[in-house]
Amino acid sequence: MADDKTDFSGLSAIFFNGTLTKSPQPSHTGRLIKISTEIMEKHGVKTEVIRTVDRPKIATGVWPDMSEHGWPGDEWPALYKKVEAADILVLAGPIWLGDNSSMTKKIIERLYSCSSLLNDAGQYAFYGKVGGCLITGNEDGIKHCAMDVLYSLQHLGCVIPPQADAGWIGEAGPGASYGDDDGKGGKAGFDNDFTNRNTTFMTWNLMHLAKMLKNNGGIPAEGNQRSKWDDGSRFDFENPEYR
Amino acid sequence: MADDKTDFSGLSAIFFNGTLTKSPQPSHTGRLIKISTEIMEKHGVKTEVIRTVDRPKIATGVWPDMSEHGWPGDEWPALYKKVEAADILVLAGPIWLGDNSSMTKKIIERLYSCSSLLNDAGQYAFYGKVGGCLITGNEDGIKHCAMDVLYSLQHLGCVIPPQADAGWIGEAGPGASYGDDDGKGGKAGFDNDFTNRNTTFMTWNLMHLAKMLKNNGGIPAEGNQRSKWDDGSRFDFENPEYR
Amino acid sequence: MADDKTDFSGLSAIFFNGTLTKSPQPSHTGRLIKISTEIMEKHGVKTEVIRTVDRPKIATGVWPDMSEHGWPGDEWPALYKKVEAADILVLAGPIWLGDNSSMTKKIIERLYSCSSLLNDAGQYAFYGKVGGCLITGNEDGIKHCAMDVLYSLQHLGCVIPPQADAGWIGEAGPGASYGDDDGKGGKAGFDNDFTNRNTTFMTWNLMHLAKMLKNNGGIPAEGNQRSKWDDGSRFDFENPEYR
Amino acid sequence: MADDKTDFSGLSAIFFNGTLTKSPQPSHTGRLIKISTEIMEKHGVKTEVIRTVDRPKIATGVWPDMSEHGWPGDEWPALYKKVEAADILVLAGPIWLGDNSSMTKKIIERLYSCSSLLNDAGQYAFYGKVGGCLITGNEDGIKHCAMDVLYSLQHLGCVIPPQADAGWIGEAGPGASYGDDDGKGGKAGFDNDFTNRNTTFMTWNLMHLAKMLKNNGGIPAEGNQRSKWDDGSRFDFENPEYR
Repeated sequence: MADDKTDFSGLSAIFFNGTLTKSPQPSHTGRLIKISTEIMEKHGVKTEVIRTVDRPKIATGVWPDMSEHGWPGDEWPALYKKVEAADILVLAGPIWLGDNSSMTKKIIERLYSCSSLLNDAGQYAFYGKVGGCLITGNEDGIKHCAMDVLYSLQHLGCVIPPQADAGWIGEAGPGASYGDDDGKGGKAGFDNDFTNRNTTFMTWNLMHLAKMLKNNGGIPAEGNQRSKWDDGSRFDFENPEYR
Repeated sequence: MADDKTDFSGLSAIFFNGTLTKSPQPSHTGRLIKISTEIMEKHGVKTEVIRTVDRPKIATGVWPDMSEHGWPGDEWPALYKKVEAADILVLAGPIWLGDNSSMTKKIIERLYSCSSLLNDAGQYAFYGKVGGCLITGNEDGIKHCAMDVLYSLQHLGCVIPPQADAGWIGEAGPGASYGDDDGKGGKAGFDNDFTNRNTTFMTWNLMHLAKMLKNNGGIPAEGNQRSKWDDGSRFDFENPEYR
Repeated sequence: MADDKTDFSGLSAIFFNGTLTKSPQPSHTGRLIKISTEIMEKHGVKTEVIRTVDRPKIATGVWPDMSEHGWPGDEWPALYKKVEAADILVLAGPIWLGDNSSMTKKIIERLYSCSSLLNDAGQYAFYGKVGGCLITGNEDGIKHCAMDVLYSLQHLGCVIPPQADAGWIGEAGPGASYGDDDGKGGKAGFDNDFTNRNTTFMTWNLMHLAKMLKNNGGIPAEGNQRSKWDDGSRFDFENPEYR
Repeated sequence: MADDKTDFSGLSAIFFNGTLTKSPQPSHTGRLIKISTEIMEKHGVKTEVIRTVDRPKIATGVWPDMSEHGWPGDEWPALYKKVEAADILVLAGPIWLGDNSSMTKKIIERLYSCSSLLNDAGQYAFYGKVGGCLITGNEDGIKHCAMDVLYSLQHLGCVIPPQADAGWIGEAGPGASYGDDDGKGGKAGFDNDFTNRNTTFMTWNLMHLAKMLKNNGGIPAEGNQRSKWDDGSRFDFENPEYR
């Protein structure tokens, strides 16, 4: 078997990096993202990384365009066009006090602000996309952060492939962050087999599911069209009161 | 449009009900499960519901067979065969103090105890299955419980379809549980459009993804085989230290 | 018994409102906060509410003063002086997709940025304060949001009084937010006995614990001074390896 | 300064160990608990540790005595008497798939089953107690588990002292659990300064707050008595609708 038998070219991915650190300072999470984007690029998947903190013109709120709601401007509508065009959506970010950063939450809020948009079949607009998650911290919280991110992505309508979360943390307590000098002549986390394997598997599974959905024309439009439900279709649902 | 254009016959689903209430008393969560299993059955999907609290012979622990680890017996190995055979795995349960029940956690622990098993392709044994979640409570906690359940299922290797969580809760504070008399001549939650729609969409999306995976022979075995990784394959992963 | 036998005058409280809605639009969370501040004011507790979204000059990050880390300015150092002066610290905010808002997370990050500061006794600077939480949403998530907020506050060094979380949410699904017209001639949540009772109990318990700590001169400085630990004191801790 | 200037004798503490491992096998969490109980014992605090998995006669459910609800017997009512008598209540346990164990959840459910009991002042029965949390795992999840435990304890009516959570986890991925051979001639976690410091500070802060509450006769009975609220007292609460 060749590892590259599937043709993934034509797919595209967008990663949001929720670091609190502005460019040009390095982002620990950015280092982990790079492992994933490099695998994707080798297989012809177009990738783009948005570092949210570098774009103060992304407004905060839960409407698709906050410039209509009291904000002087809003870069989100332009970014949402990129989300719309992507097959793969990855939210990446750091852990602070055990939870996702305010920049990660800001993007989840803006994605959610677009959650009522529908595609031509009447399904939610995120149907047909796949979602994943990358988390880094110096200690504790990958799973907690990933629970929230992956929950949000599936709730919006993304498919979550197998093992779609990966990350690195060190032992309990203060210490080096991902890719910092580990004080032993290496870089913290770079040799962590678990982190490397999970990041690799996540990347491949995102590509596989994105490809599978593309080949299938998205999620079949049966039983899941909001527009039809609102028009009275019930898709074999029966109210338990009348059984 | 015909709601039944896809042929789902041949698929099977297993639901675990994590209620703390023993049979024959009614389970609120059981009422919601029934909406989902009825839709599935209409489409030829074979369903089975396991009410965990009724089966005290399921041991507690994180080994595949706890009878080898100090427990007098263990019904889990027999139940795991049913999990293995199922295409769709749904963890359902109640909310207590905002979180999943001990019975739901018990089953997650036992599923996790089998997480190192591999299929013939060297992928984790849960690859190829799809997972979902149904939660009921009198107030507050569907999303918190679903975050944990869906995270666990994807971490094990299941695909999470779009909007794979559904549930019902009432307004903040004590009150009727799902399907109880609502004090206004109806049954609490039965007319909740959000609950009914989400349960229906979840059910269809579980069937669609299960069918899609079955048609595709599971998750393609490229870049995600634990056995090959352990043998040294790296699937285009490059250690960032050596870039 | 008179309800007002304790003299709470001399105490002060700061509330952060994490709404995403800018003034002058009404904030649902602001309505709930007002119940609490009104009780406090009646008892001579000085209160101040900071609506984070109205203050774009609060920088984002994890240093005490982000103007030293690439931000053009930072209002946080001035706000932190208010936090330092307060006996009671309440984080309030809305629920979005089941979790805290980015504005609530931003404040937690900034509080955390000051977590290494010590008081004169060598304890963390938050020792001696009490913390609470108020959450509103149209559905689902008070407890999930409160878990994160209260965890953060105790981790920083605040005491959490009994039942220090309160909030309001409606039944599962879209609907009125707190204080909006409920479509039945009332205001959503205003007559919710659970919300009103919990908000009242939280408020009193914050005052009681703040007063008790003030009377006791804060948390006794024994066994909990970071400065002494770093100097080698172990406070009767024994390393299990050498037992 | 003498570390022992406060007299803590007369206080008592109960710890629940939620390990899934039955005696006589060692419990990793048990090792961490011992650090805390040893400090307490040195100061005259009476301690008892209940290893839940060793007591299969504790029933599962949300009533104070499940033997009245279809279970053949129930050890909980006897254990609850111990909880009632204790000043300090610590829930300790392992992390499985990033979350608390089923044994920890079982105890939270049973504590919650007693949440409507009131003391002589009409406050919830847990008022006057203090609560803490100890968590161990081989990787990731202390804060997530502690969030749930501490939230539950304060919701029941316990005071949460500053920094009432402690624990140990290793770097991301499989590895030694707390106190196991670390492969480098030591025991995993025993030299972790963060774990040792937090466990020590938690222990002292539990003792300080328990003592302070005891000296003050519990939480003052003003504004927080469920019985009076139910009889119509409102403790200066004003309904916002009528302001």
